[in-house]
Amino acid sequence: MAQKPSIPKGTRDFTPAEMARRNYIFDTIRSVFHLFGFQQIETPAMENLSTLMGKYGEEGDKLLFKILNSGDFLRGVDPGLIASGDCPKLAPKLCEKGLRYDLTVPFARFVVMHRNDLSFPFKRFQIQPVWRADRPQKGRYREFYQCDADVVGSDSLLNEIELIQMIDEVFARLGIRTTIKLNNRKVLAGIAELVGEPEKIVDITVAIDKIDKIGLENVKAELSERGLSAEAIDRITPIITLSGTNEERLSQLSQLLADSETGLKGVAELREVMEGSKTLGLRSELELDVCLARGLNYYTGTIIEVKARDVEIGSITGGGRYDNLTGVFGLPGVSGVGISFGADRIYDVLNTLNLYPEDIAGAAKVMFTNFGPAEAAKSLEIIKQLRANGISAEIYPDNAKMKKQMGRADALGIPFVAIIGESELADGYVTLKNMTSGEQNRMSVEELIKALA
Amino acid sequence: MAQKPSIPKGTRDFTPAEMARRNYIFDTIRSVFHLFGFQQIETPAMENLSTLMGKYGEEGDKLLFKILNSGDFLRGVDPGLIASGDCPKLAPKLCEKGLRYDLTVPFARFVVMHRNDLSFPFKRFQIQPVWRADRPQKGRYREFYQCDADVVGSDSLLNEIELIQMIDEVFARLGIRTTIKLNNRKVLAGIAELVGEPEKIVDITVAIDKIDKIGLENVKAELSERGLSAEAIDRITPIITLSGTNEERLSQLSQLLADSETGLKGVAELREVMEGSKTLGLRSELELDVCLARGLNYYTGTIIEVKARDVEIGSITGGGRYDNLTGVFGLPGVSGVGISFGADRIYDVLNTLNLYPEDIAGAAKVMFTNFGPAEAAKSLEIIKQLRANGISAEIYPDNAKMKKQMGRADALGIPFVAIIGESELADGYVTLKNMTSGEQNRMSVEELIKALA
Repeated sequence: MAQKPSIPKGTRDFTPAEMARRNYIFDTIRSVFHLFGFQQIETPAMENLSTLMGKYGEEGDKLLFKILNSGDFLRGVDPGLIASGDCPKLAPKLCEKGLRYDLTVPFARFVVMHRNDLSFPFKRFQIQPVWRADRPQKGRYREFYQCDADVVGSDSLLNEIELIQMIDEVFARLGIRTTIKLNNRKVLAGIAELVGEPEKIVDITVAIDKIDKIGLENVKAELSERGLSAEAIDRITPIITLSGTNEERLSQLSQLLADSETGLKGVAELREVMEGSKTLGLRSELELDVCLARGLNYYTGTIIEVKARDVEIGSITGGGRYDNLTGVFGLPGVSGVGISFGADRIYDVLNTLNLYPEDIAGAAKVMFTNFGPAEAAKSLEIIKQLRANGISAEIYPDNAKMKKQMGRADALGIPFVAIIGESELADGYVTLKNMTSGEQNRMSVEELIKALA
Repeated sequence: MAQKPSIPKGTRDFTPAEMARRNYIFDTIRSVFHLFGFQQIETPAMENLSTLMGKYGEEGDKLLFKILNSGDFLRGVDPGLIASGDCPKLAPKLCEKGLRYDLTVPFARFVVMHRNDLSFPFKRFQIQPVWRADRPQKGRYREFYQCDADVVGSDSLLNEIELIQMIDEVFARLGIRTTIKLNNRKVLAGIAELVGEPEKIVDITVAIDKIDKIGLENVKAELSERGLSAEAIDRITPIITLSGTNEERLSQLSQLLADSETGLKGVAELREVMEGSKTLGLRSELELDVCLARGLNYYTGTIIEVKARDVEIGSITGGGRYDNLTGVFGLPGVSGVGISFGADRIYDVLNTLNLYPEDIAGAAKVMFTNFGPAEAAKSLEIIKQLRANGISAEIYPDNAKMKKQMGRADALGIPFVAIIGESELADGYVTLKNMTSGEQNRMSVEELIKALA
């Protein structure tokens, strides 16, 4: 029975043209990770649900894809629970495993399990897909890649400086002009402390994080709704509307946060990271953004976010410093700092700006036409020499009409077609056609290798 | 609550050292695929169960990992069925999606869905994990990578010749000595025809496929058990005990199969592929093996299997020609030929023979020690220059004890350590230590770049 095939919603196939573009991004990121001494790991797609559950909040638990146990999955499950139809309670009884939701929790689990084999500080990168049972929409997928780099086991701010250099190098190589925004959780804590509402740090940051979108007046209104006094709001206002150079902002900020030890520590950390980055030089803009919050409950120090300057799109990279990555798995005291490149958004930015190099198509450099067995045999012999010289080459496998054969080279973006016909077979020469210019030249095999190398 | 973490049985973490080795294999295979004009695709990990079910036999259906539907997964499921506890019947009601079991069925689905965007013959490769709920055992995992290359939409035997060249190139690059065994389904059909039992082709091939393991007499006994007459077994015996060169075997085979048109067609195909391969030259041994069967119900022409000559292990690559790849998805008449590299077994072979190059560790080439902020700042400046010259470099992020810092370089296999201490800071020189020889030299930054490039 013939089926009309489809794929699950929110998932994607990648065609050769798309793969070539994606590989260009991943290869660029991977090269830079290696250049900075980060080492790759991989973890299984499936994790035990006990590893994943409770790590992403109640909403996150619902978004985990769960794997039905094999075989007799109802055995031992309370019949009353089955009859009750209580799916959230029943699911963990039917499923022991789930698909990973991000790379951070599996990484934490990895660090704990392999801690005796790892050398700390441990600098790892990981490029793998993750799965979320989110409602699919434009730009949001149920399967997508994450590209994470983290340093664990070191409190040094040199790590932040290195990660910022790494971000700068990746986007310079990709040709994307970026602004790297920095903040520090301690500055946010300092603000909350300053207005006498340290326990309201989440309320405050959720509100001020929206200033770019909704404007100052609406932020003030929201702060008021969230229970802040007029006086508190007045004290916050100059902080969230800092202006001038980064140096000017830092010096204003240290005055405004003078009464908060935590706040001043945050300012000092920001200053060290920003000055270190400036000394080394960056092609990206670096911007102190006191309103930047990103996953606040997770980060404990530096917060990093990267925006593309020439395309309106959300952040294309983010990260920060966290304490106690592995505490939940029984290994306290492991802190770290990391970043995550958003491959899908970077892909969109490169597409929008048409920034791909010309030669990433991934097809062969030259296709030999096929005029029959003798010509094909000669072609294969020459192709073997080309490949030995590192030139990707192929032959049209069938003796089809010339139009069809040339059509394939066109469709795949193969830049050259080599022709061995009767006369070439006789004299040992090859006719090489440049598919862009249409120019044709007869040449020896040695000349062919030079022309294509 | 701290949990002692673990991973699902049959799955694996890959540490940096393991990843470096695996990447060496995958990168080698990928480079050769590109050299031969194959283009990469990727498909989602999750497929609709309707795509997967019924494609791998009854046993295969049981080995599919199924994804529990999100939310209220019991809604609309017949309460009687739930109460019945009939898990095999219930599972497809609770799950719409499953994890891919191989790359072939998703590829067939891909070809059908994208047929209007593809240029045929379509030469694709795909390197992705697959999942099987098999009982884990040594060398058998529940998640493992497949590396497949296929040409679809061409009947030409040039494709077989090219695939054999590709296999030869991959194993030459990896340094593994191999025997490439060839057979043809039509020869097997010819044998069955010859003894007047065309419908017994599976019985015959299952039996003769075991000749290397159980020997001729046991094969004969099994053929007899499977209902073949003594006369039939007598006719089969000289075929499955062919000896001599491939040419001699081919000529004996065409005499022995002279009465079977199908069989002779198979011999002619084998001859064309073997002669074409011989003309181009192979570093692997090529061997006609009439007993080779491999997934018989799938292949319709050429059958290929590769064995390592220096390690006792199952086949490390296999493949063949198939008709009607996409018929089950409503697109008849698409034939193809493909091969699949067994990455895990290749990994075991390389480990056994210790064939990895020295420089694949994946750690930085040089680590700078850290004696404090001023030395670190100077180091970062030099590191930036090294990286601009393509040299992977890192700094120990903390001002830790020298023994600890050097220990990290040792543990990671970083071949050089650069030292900027007080005196180097003063004179602008760097001390470079070769971690293998223990030799130390002071040099300028320019000399350092030359020494590490």
